[in-house]
Amino acid sequence: MSPDTTPTDAQAACFEAGIKFGTLYHQFAGTPISPDSAASLATAMEESIENQPHCTAVTVDVRLEELEAELADSTADYTELTGRFLEVEIVVDYEGCEVVTRMEMEDGYPLMRLESVRDD
Amino acid sequence: MSPDTTPTDAQAACFEAGIKFGTLYHQFAGTPISPDSAASLATAMEESIENQPHCTAVTVDVRLEELEAELADSTADYTELTGRFLEVEIVVDYEGCEVVTRMEMEDGYPLMRLESVRDD
Amino acid sequence: MSPDTTPTDAQAACFEAGIKFGTLYHQFAGTPISPDSAASLATAMEESIENQPHCTAVTVDVRLEELEAELADSTADYTELTGRFLEVEIVVDYEGCEVVTRMEMEDGYPLMRLESVRDD
Amino acid sequence: MSPDTTPTDAQAACFEAGIKFGTLYHQFAGTPISPDSAASLATAMEESIENQPHCTAVTVDVRLEELEAELADSTADYTELTGRFLEVEIVVDYEGCEVVTRMEMEDGYPLMRLESVRDD
Repeated sequence: MSPDTTPTDAQAACFEAGIKFGTLYHQFAGTPISPDSAASLATAMEESIENQPHCTAVTVDVRLEELEAELADSTADYTELTGRFLEVEIVVDYEGCEVVTRMEMEDGYPLMRLESVRDD
Repeated sequence: MSPDTTPTDAQAACFEAGIKFGTLYHQFAGTPISPDSAASLATAMEESIENQPHCTAVTVDVRLEELEAELADSTADYTELTGRFLEVEIVVDYEGCEVVTRMEMEDGYPLMRLESVRDD
Repeated sequence: MSPDTTPTDAQAACFEAGIKFGTLYHQFAGTPISPDSAASLATAMEESIENQPHCTAVTVDVRLEELEAELADSTADYTELTGRFLEVEIVVDYEGCEVVTRMEMEDGYPLMRLESVRDD
Repeated sequence: MSPDTTPTDAQAACFEAGIKFGTLYHQFAGTPISPDSAASLATAMEESIENQPHCTAVTVDVRLEELEAELADSTADYTELTGRFLEVEIVVDYEGCEVVTRMEMEDGYPLMRLESVRDD
């Protein structure tokens, strides 16, 4: 491999942050969720993903208003977890590089994005 | 359909109980888990599955000794949730039929089975 | 356990069928899907669930018109697999009892139900 | 945000690649798999992940020898998909930056890593 394609620590930190986001979303999407069970699911998502290497902090907020609005239109009292019910922040520290990433709704889609990359 | 193949309420209750077990296992298998995060995951599993129709009670016990034994042999401090770390009881009530089901290890495999079917 | 709560073979067959449905749905819900990738996903769903004990046949039809209608309203060219894109039939044979189960849309919800239970 | 923490295109490409890996692993881990169903599952994994944005190519190889060795020691004829049965390569192209990533076994663990980052 030529030197100029060798990943930097900051790039590896971004890769690690992406892994955490893909894991969080696809492990838990589809889970039955209601306003009453939202808090325990959010806590479990945070604590399970924080187990992964280099993961400093995970914050999961369930958008309860959005969830309640969907259930108000429904004959069911629960639904499946999907991106529009979530706001997530994940912080990764890899070899001194801190990466902050967020998922939130943008134009009707849950968008995962890099917010900042601090390379010490 | 001939009358003798029409499902009874007790059979439907058993079908519903099976759905809950398949959901619980395949929604959460693979989740990163450590002794510290086991309790929050167990609670989330219970509360999310209890959202499903006809589901009266879900009890999830993480087998911490088994989990700690695996991690003692490992360079990692977490692993992936799988059946050998779990004991689960699910109770379903469908049209007055109560079905109790359990998953526990038997001969090295996590076995899901019907424990009792009470047809009122 | 009193004799009258001991599960029958037909009830166990229904429980097994439910497990397969919960597995199929919660293993694959959330998978990225497009009209081009629908066929390979359907085949993988069928073949993986047919591995499970007592499972005779699994038929997965992706509702392409529904999928294409959703994508026509979207800026994305794929979406996440969920119940409204699926029609599924699962046949289980347990100790000579054949159970046929289906999932299809009813009143806007994907409904899993027992279709017939043949107890030889 | 100070300018020096603004992510570069190459860092965003690495983040995207990580998302694909986390998705692939946690969407499909736990799927029932046997030597006969391995090929259809690998194809579905490739085609579903290739739907995701900026994903150029996904190659999934199931390590059949490892799978057959596990089943030879077992009374079951299938098992659950997990990392030690997989070798995966994912290529992402984001704004002209091509990132090649691989997952393979290292010291008994499935390790996901960045192989090269080409920033045009």
